[in-house]
Amino acid sequence: MSETPTAARPFGWDRTSAVRMAEPDDAGRALLAELAAALPADRVLTDADTARPYFHDEAEWAEHGSPLAVVRPRSTAEVAAVVRASARHRVPVVPRGAGTGLSGGANAVDGGIVLSLERMREILEIDGGERLAVVQPGVVNDDLRAAAAAQDLWYPPDPASAPWSTIGGNVATNAGGLCCVKYGVTKDYVLALEIVTAAGEIVRVGRRTAKGVTGYDLAALMVGSEGTLAVITEITVRLRPLRTTPPRTVVGFFDTLTDCGAAVAAVTAAGLQPSIFELVDHHCLHAVNEWRNAGLPEDAAALLLAQTDLPEPAAEIEARGILAAFEAHGARDTLMSTDPVEADALFDARRLAYPAFEQRGDALLTEDVCVPRTRVAEMLGRIQEIAARRDTLVANVAHVGDGNLHPLIMVPQGDDAARERAQRAFDDIVDAAIELGGTVTGEHGVGLLKRAGMRRELDPGSLALQKAIKSALDPDDILNPGKVL
Amino acid sequence: MSETPTAARPFGWDRTSAVRMAEPDDAGRALLAELAAALPADRVLTDADTARPYFHDEAEWAEHGSPLAVVRPRSTAEVAAVVRASARHRVPVVPRGAGTGLSGGANAVDGGIVLSLERMREILEIDGGERLAVVQPGVVNDDLRAAAAAQDLWYPPDPASAPWSTIGGNVATNAGGLCCVKYGVTKDYVLALEIVTAAGEIVRVGRRTAKGVTGYDLAALMVGSEGTLAVITEITVRLRPLRTTPPRTVVGFFDTLTDCGAAVAAVTAAGLQPSIFELVDHHCLHAVNEWRNAGLPEDAAALLLAQTDLPEPAAEIEARGILAAFEAHGARDTLMSTDPVEADALFDARRLAYPAFEQRGDALLTEDVCVPRTRVAEMLGRIQEIAARRDTLVANVAHVGDGNLHPLIMVPQGDDAARERAQRAFDDIVDAAIELGGTVTGEHGVGLLKRAGMRRELDPGSLALQKAIKSALDPDDILNPGKVL
Repeated sequence: MSETPTAARPFGWDRTSAVRMAEPDDAGRALLAELAAALPADRVLTDADTARPYFHDEAEWAEHGSPLAVVRPRSTAEVAAVVRASARHRVPVVPRGAGTGLSGGANAVDGGIVLSLERMREILEIDGGERLAVVQPGVVNDDLRAAAAAQDLWYPPDPASAPWSTIGGNVATNAGGLCCVKYGVTKDYVLALEIVTAAGEIVRVGRRTAKGVTGYDLAALMVGSEGTLAVITEITVRLRPLRTTPPRTVVGFFDTLTDCGAAVAAVTAAGLQPSIFELVDHHCLHAVNEWRNAGLPEDAAALLLAQTDLPEPAAEIEARGILAAFEAHGARDTLMSTDPVEADALFDARRLAYPAFEQRGDALLTEDVCVPRTRVAEMLGRIQEIAARRDTLVANVAHVGDGNLHPLIMVPQGDDAARERAQRAFDDIVDAAIELGGTVTGEHGVGLLKRAGMRRELDPGSLALQKAIKSALDPDDILNPGKVL
Repeated sequence: MSETPTAARPFGWDRTSAVRMAEPDDAGRALLAELAAALPADRVLTDADTARPYFHDEAEWAEHGSPLAVVRPRSTAEVAAVVRASARHRVPVVPRGAGTGLSGGANAVDGGIVLSLERMREILEIDGGERLAVVQPGVVNDDLRAAAAAQDLWYPPDPASAPWSTIGGNVATNAGGLCCVKYGVTKDYVLALEIVTAAGEIVRVGRRTAKGVTGYDLAALMVGSEGTLAVITEITVRLRPLRTTPPRTVVGFFDTLTDCGAAVAAVTAAGLQPSIFELVDHHCLHAVNEWRNAGLPEDAAALLLAQTDLPEPAAEIEARGILAAFEAHGARDTLMSTDPVEADALFDARRLAYPAFEQRGDALLTEDVCVPRTRVAEMLGRIQEIAARRDTLVANVAHVGDGNLHPLIMVPQGDDAARERAQRAFDDIVDAAIELGGTVTGEHGVGLLKRAGMRRELDPGSLALQKAIKSALDPDDILNPGKVL
């Protein structure tokens, strides 16, 4: 268990304390003058009240600094101008999408520029013949999905933040979501990128063709690099044909987490491939009941929710296979449905878990560990032990088919002792995931909150290689310094 | 069109001229002594007759050097010892799998070590619960596929070299194959790697979990880096459930390449996803007829072959959709079949094309360009023009669903003028692919033969980033120098 003193950790005690702009030094003043000369006035915010929403992402408790300015460019050329000028004055640049991140990856750095890509939000092209889309980084995930659907195409990555988060941010964090259990994560869809390097040069990496092996896969390297290697200014993604048949939904409630884990393993062992496979634990069921009077069975340890999107009748066969695996391991109150309304109601337990806790007024720290699929039940058991030991409420939703768990650590507002215990629980969960052969972040990114965990997880040789790459591509540490590495 | 003088190009005129070992200098002598002391005697070959098969891959005409020694380690520790010693003496190391490459990527460098991984051929683990396999680099692709199948699992990447090529080589070149049109290429299956760095350190990158975003995706960077960034000593790949239903095969012959291209585009536009989608042109049909008396219609411009592997009856619906797209664009002699024997016979035209040309005794230069899917017909037209202009026979097979073409450039043995013309045709095809928005290598890799094309294709900024990464990870240019970059 980690017992690192709090002072050395990336949890800021009070986020509201740092809502002022940085006092510019000589370099800062020179940079601001250059930006004012180079960009239209509406691009640069230096007033704390207007700039404040750009100071941090949605990671509760992650520290953030006081930036020199927030810049909201409208073109790649403007991004390049900002990075060039910042690099010349050795001022850090923190790229930022919609700020829905949960690791502090987009949090402002003291005296730096926050570079918001939110105004670069054009869908430049959707090509049905090539099954690809070209978008600016500020395009909202759901907007791309809708535009693709209008041409019978589908962009699968669907993080929970999809109504607000941007493709640029999704690429920077390699966002996942519900359907990645069958269809993969953001990196599986990125074909090409236009980037602005740490020196402010505009470079194209990747390709528009379905295949290609010309040189190193720089696009793959950029995906998930959280703005530390380059600023992403354009993204070409692969699309799939739109799915047209309604999915079949299967649910079951389990009395023990062990049964639940066995059911998940049985689904995999049977060669079944649900397109969604989620777990909701009893804390979430209870919270949703309390908030919405949902009538979910609270005596269950967990609910499993699966969907299959195969064409019929294969979907029915797969759904029956999933149901059989559930029932063989003690599921009760099982249901199978093709009715979209009914399916939606079944998924409410999953969808409403977060807001149910949020409306209680507690602070929520969202974990994001991923363990080998077969060790999910064991990991959930460890989380229960940790919650008890740290006297902290930890609820669980999980992309269980991927082994990706999102423990929600709850802390009553203003209770410093509870907060301290919650932070220790957070570290303990990270350690337990590593012990079980897992990773400290499945899809949210390292940002600030998982830096220590990443150092515990990775081979020191891997960290050294990553540092060598960072130094090679950003020798002056201009891009999002202090994040990830 | 490129008119680079032949002397400056990577085509060796006569591969049999360099079949001797390099004369060791002081560093070479010291290295050989160290290797002799550190490794069992059978690991190191310094006799030209025994070592000769390791001098080059299967890229006709790609130059190769005279190595100091061929080393065939049996463990990661031995690989690390070889790289450490070589690095100390500044002697280049060329990693090598089965040598089935078609770009010269594994060709010996003068005075260097050829490091063959062929003896590290253990399948270390196949885990059905996690759907993954862990293998040594020398495991043959088909052997992994067979071992996975024994556990109802499937390793999809299926390069034509699968009966001989190794997973290590497949990873180093990001190999594709027939089924990547639906199931992706090698990089889509690599979860983790053990590598030996240029300094001889053993490092683990990637993860065993289904998802994970801890730091930069070094595993993805290594895939396709052709031995220039590290030596791959262990590979963890993702597996899929084994497909159990026989696929449906659809074929059609077309009178013009334009019709053929329109049929391909119509299949994509209809949202169909064949699991195999291949083109065989009239030169190939003719050669197969001549060799095997196959009775294929030679007056057709090309044959399209598609398969669907959906569960029935969705497969039948998809197959009928493909057939309809073919027929709407003038296909004749169409066939649809679920009989594996009949399907196999239909695929003979594809499978026998290479050997049909090989048995004629001509030298074969295999191209590997990839263009946007919608420009395949246009690219085939360009290739016809180039073949006519260069007075050279160029036959075509293509993974047409991906836009990945493999023009086969034929040269009668010993005809130097024809060879010169063929090399110009090779360069012209590369240029045409770039002009159409394509890439100079879809799945074979850059090696030696596509270095010039890669420089023409890529953004100079991308090349600069790649060089920066190479310098950061291999500052003394020990690993496969002169390849790719």
